[in-house]
Amino acid sequence: MKVGVIGVGMTDFGEFWDKSYRNLIVEAGTLAIKDAGIEGKDVDAAYVGSMTPGLFIGQEHVGALVADYVGLRGIPATRVEGACASGGLAINAAYNSIKSGEYDIVVAAGVEKMTDVSTGRATVALAGAADQEWEAFHGVTFPGLYALMARRHMKEYGTTEEQMAMVAVKNHENGALNPHAQYRSTITVKQVMESIPVADPLKILDCSPITDGAAVVILASEEKAKKLCENPVWLKTSACATDALALHDRESLCKTEAAIRAGRTAFKKSGLTPDDIDFAEVHDCFTIAEIMAIESLGFCPIGKGGKFTEDGETKLNGSKPVNTSGGLKSKGHPVGATGIAQACEAVLQLRGEAGKRQVKDAKYGLTHNVGGSGATCVVNIFAGGDVE
Amino acid sequence: MKVGVIGVGMTDFGEFWDKSYRNLIVEAGTLAIKDAGIEGKDVDAAYVGSMTPGLFIGQEHVGALVADYVGLRGIPATRVEGACASGGLAINAAYNSIKSGEYDIVVAAGVEKMTDVSTGRATVALAGAADQEWEAFHGVTFPGLYALMARRHMKEYGTTEEQMAMVAVKNHENGALNPHAQYRSTITVKQVMESIPVADPLKILDCSPITDGAAVVILASEEKAKKLCENPVWLKTSACATDALALHDRESLCKTEAAIRAGRTAFKKSGLTPDDIDFAEVHDCFTIAEIMAIESLGFCPIGKGGKFTEDGETKLNGSKPVNTSGGLKSKGHPVGATGIAQACEAVLQLRGEAGKRQVKDAKYGLTHNVGGSGATCVVNIFAGGDVE
Repeated sequence: MKVGVIGVGMTDFGEFWDKSYRNLIVEAGTLAIKDAGIEGKDVDAAYVGSMTPGLFIGQEHVGALVADYVGLRGIPATRVEGACASGGLAINAAYNSIKSGEYDIVVAAGVEKMTDVSTGRATVALAGAADQEWEAFHGVTFPGLYALMARRHMKEYGTTEEQMAMVAVKNHENGALNPHAQYRSTITVKQVMESIPVADPLKILDCSPITDGAAVVILASEEKAKKLCENPVWLKTSACATDALALHDRESLCKTEAAIRAGRTAFKKSGLTPDDIDFAEVHDCFTIAEIMAIESLGFCPIGKGGKFTEDGETKLNGSKPVNTSGGLKSKGHPVGATGIAQACEAVLQLRGEAGKRQVKDAKYGLTHNVGGSGATCVVNIFAGGDVE
Repeated sequence: MKVGVIGVGMTDFGEFWDKSYRNLIVEAGTLAIKDAGIEGKDVDAAYVGSMTPGLFIGQEHVGALVADYVGLRGIPATRVEGACASGGLAINAAYNSIKSGEYDIVVAAGVEKMTDVSTGRATVALAGAADQEWEAFHGVTFPGLYALMARRHMKEYGTTEEQMAMVAVKNHENGALNPHAQYRSTITVKQVMESIPVADPLKILDCSPITDGAAVVILASEEKAKKLCENPVWLKTSACATDALALHDRESLCKTEAAIRAGRTAFKKSGLTPDDIDFAEVHDCFTIAEIMAIESLGFCPIGKGGKFTEDGETKLNGSKPVNTSGGLKSKGHPVGATGIAQACEAVLQLRGEAGKRQVKDAKYGLTHNVGGSGATCVVNIFAGGDVE
C-alpha cells in the first residue's frame, strides 16, 4: 500500500518570545489541515516528534496536549522521541500506522520551544541526546562531539575548514530564499572562517542555531490520498536505523553508520539509487554533518564530501541540490520539528511550489534526519505525484 | 494479520541504588529474549516506553541507547512517550509496525529510573504529565488531581474512603504473591484509613509508590509467532485514545473519557465484550483510579466501582479479577515500564504461569494503561494460545 502526503504546514522558524509551544503547534497544524483541505474530525491519529519538552518547558505528555490544542481531542496520540531525529521518527511511526491498516489519515507533527531557557540550560537539555554517563556527565557538548568528528574527517580525508564553511555559505544562500528561515542573510567563506570559534575546528557559523518552531505533515492511505488530492506527493519509503549512542563506541569517528544503514534500507525498499534522487534535505546541525551525510547517503564517495561541496554539486543549480530550504544552519533547528520541516520542503519541491528555490523537474526527494551525534537516523524518500 | 507475544521479561520492581537505568533494561531485555528463545539478531525493531528520563537521569534519546545496550545495535529504535501510558504506547506502536508488514519481530520495552532524584524533584518530573501552564505551574501535584477526582466521585456516586482502601488491600493481597512486587506485605482497611493523608481524601496507602524497574515484551507476526512458539499468546487488539490534558477541560471530573473511548475501540475491534474478559490489569496509580477504570471499561456501571470492589468481585477469586499482579499500588509504578509490566502479567496468566495468583481457565486478559490524570489511555487485549 502506498502512503500519500496530503497536507503540509510550518511556522516561521526563529526566536519567538511571544509564542508558546502550544501557539507554535496550533499554527503549524492549522496550516497543514487547511493545506490538506480536510477537517480535524477526518484525522484518525497523531504522532508528535519533540525532543525534550520536559527539560525545555517542563511539559511531557505532549501527544495528548497537541491533539487537544490542534482540535483533535480524543484521537490516539503518541509522542515519539529520538533526539533531533524525533520528527523523522514521527513520520516513520505515522507511515507504519497507515500501512498497518489501523488508520487512514494521520498527522505527523514536530515542535520544539527552545528559547524559553538560557543558552546554558539549552546546552544541558541538548546534551541529553548524547550518552549521559560517558559523554555529557564529563562535560562534552554537541559542538565538541562534532568537532571531534570534523577533526578526524580532516585527518583521514583531507577535508578543509574552508570546505566546511562552504556548506554554511551555500545553505545561507538557499535560506535567504525561504520565507520561513531564521537567518535570511547570505554569508561568505571569509566570514565563516573569521567567526568566533566554538569547538575547534568549528566556528559559530558552522553551527545551527537554537530555534523555536513547529511543522506538520498529514499522511493518508493511498485510497484517501487519491480521493483528497488531485496529485498527492507519495512517501515512498521510511527507514530508520541506529548506532551506539556514544561516539567512542562507534567503529569510526567520521562515518555515520546509522545513516549508511537507513539509507541502504530506504534505497532497497524503494528500488531507487542515490542517482535517482533529485534533491535532498540533510541534517546539517554542523557543517561537517552535511559533509558526512552526503557521503553516507552515497551522493559522493566516503571522504569526498568536502570536495563535492567545493565543486558546487550540492548548490541549488548543482547536480545534487542539498538543503534547498536553507537546512538546519540557515532555516533553523527546533530539534523536534526539524525532521518534519525537511518533509515539508520535500513536498513543496515535488509539488513545484518552492518558489525561488525550486529544483527543476524534481521527481524524487530524500530527507535525512539525525539524532544526537548520529545514533539515530531516519531516511524518508518522497516521490512527486506524477511518478509511480 | 494476528500479532503474537513470543517473550516477556521484567526486573524486580523497587528502589535500587545499585542498578542504573541501563542495568534495568538490560536485565529485562535479556530475560525476554531468553524467554522467546531467540537471539538478538532476530529482532527487527524496538519501541521503548519511558516517561521522562530527561528529568530523572538527564538522558533523552533512549531508543538508540536501549537498542545498543540490549545487544541490538543498528536496528530501528524509537522512544515513545505518553506519560505513565508510555509502556502501553510502546506496545501499540510495535503492534502497528508488525501489522504494517515492515517488521516481523519487534521489542516493546519500558523502563524508568525514578529514585536517583529526591522525592521533590520526582514530583516535579511527574508533574510534566499534567498541564504545565494550567495545572503544574500553579502547584497541582498528581495526588492533588486524583484527590479532586476522588472527592467528586464520592459526591456524585456515594463512593466511600473505605471502598477506596479496599482497592489497596486487595492489590497488596495479590502483590504479596508476586515475586517481582515492590511491596509484598498485606495491609488492612484500618491501616489504609489511618495512614498519613497526602491529599484529602487520599492517604499514603491509597497511592502507588516511586519505583525503579523495567519490563519487555517481544511481539511477532503470526507466521513467526507460530514458528517460534508452540502456543503463543496473541495480542488481539491495541487501542489508544486521548482526552484534554487538564482536568478542568474535561466533561466530567470523575469519568475518564479516554479510557471509555479506548475500551470501546478495543472491544469493537476484537469482537469481544467486557463480559468476555477473564482478568484485567488496570492503572491503579491511586485507589480511585482503579474504581474509575473498572467503570470506564464496562466491568461495572459508572458510579458502581466502589460497590463492585466492596463486594469482592475484583479479588483474585472474584468474578472479575483485577490487578492480579498487585497493580501499581503493590507491584510498584516505574512509570514508563508499567504498561509493559501489565502485559507481562497478562501473558503469564494466559500461559498458566502466574503461580499462586493464577486465574483459572483464563482465556482473555485486558490491560488498561493511563497517562497523567487520564489524558492518554491504551487498552490492549490478549488472548490465550488456545483461543482463536
